[in-house]
Amino acid sequence: MIIFGIDPGIATVGYGFVEYEGNKFKLMQYGIVKTAAGLPLSQRLLEIANDIDALLQRFKPYAVAVEELFFNNNIKTGIHVAHGRGVVLLECRRMNCPIFEYTPLQVKQAVTGYGRAEKKQVMEMTRRILGLEKVPRPDDAADALALAICHGHSSGSQGVLTDNSI
Amino acid sequence: MIIFGIDPGIATVGYGFVEYEGNKFKLMQYGIVKTAAGLPLSQRLLEIANDIDALLQRFKPYAVAVEELFFNNNIKTGIHVAHGRGVVLLECRRMNCPIFEYTPLQVKQAVTGYGRAEKKQVMEMTRRILGLEKVPRPDDAADALALAICHGHSSGSQGVLTDNSI
Repeated sequence: MIIFGIDPGIATVGYGFVEYEGNKFKLMQYGIVKTAAGLPLSQRLLEIANDIDALLQRFKPYAVAVEELFFNNNIKTGIHVAHGRGVVLLECRRMNCPIFEYTPLQVKQAVTGYGRAEKKQVMEMTRRILGLEKVPRPDDAADALALAICHGHSSGSQGVLTDNSI
Repeated sequence: MIIFGIDPGIATVGYGFVEYEGNKFKLMQYGIVKTAAGLPLSQRLLEIANDIDALLQRFKPYAVAVEELFFNNNIKTGIHVAHGRGVVLLECRRMNCPIFEYTPLQVKQAVTGYGRAEKKQVMEMTRRILGLEKVPRPDDAADALALAICHGHSSGSQGVLTDNSI
């Protein structure tokens, strides 16, 4: 099955597609959607929605894995990220793609086997699991790939998709 | 011109359409979009997006006035509201409808002439300005109508639309 990992944001949305078959992962594509800071918020949301929509149409993923949203120190940034996350969830829902949400702890646990792993370890395990020469860049894209791997492991171990669709 | 006031949310989105011509307001329609708490967030977002889209298609407003998002005590609710606001902005942008953002203070000032007016006074003035017998209910719909009035006053006094499109 094709899993679409998304690390939501407003300036940068990380994404990654992996194919998960027989307990093995294969990288399909990864990258970021970038929007310019000077644009109106609604225009940035439109660009994110259109790009996510185009990716959904192209790869027709079986499931989407997104990070749960936590608020950091900057509330204003957090509000904008939540706007962006809203349109990402909307576009996935419009394509009838099941959505699964994971916490950073769940991702770390699934990718490295250790919930308190450092970011660097998660990146390195993501590289190894996907059989890549280098750690995927930028970080947002690597985070999205780690989310996709996390979903593969979570659903694979149970043989079915968990119904935590948000 | 037809102005579309929207009070964003996730459980309840208030909306109101007013026609503003020659310094006078005429009520066209108002109401709320409600989504059930038990539904997945993405489903709630889809319902909001579809309903807002249907309203945009039907009334073809000249401008949209939305409330600026402030965070209250409940961060979790605030995050959900921001998700909802994101899809509202997206749908308006998709319809090429100019979006204008106002703070509660601006709305109070525009509707009652006094930035520190109480909610009750804003409601009462909204009723009078629209020539209604009763204050519109529920509050979210009344808030949306006040936003639409605020935009009419703000743009009308200058003769042109202010370019604060978000």
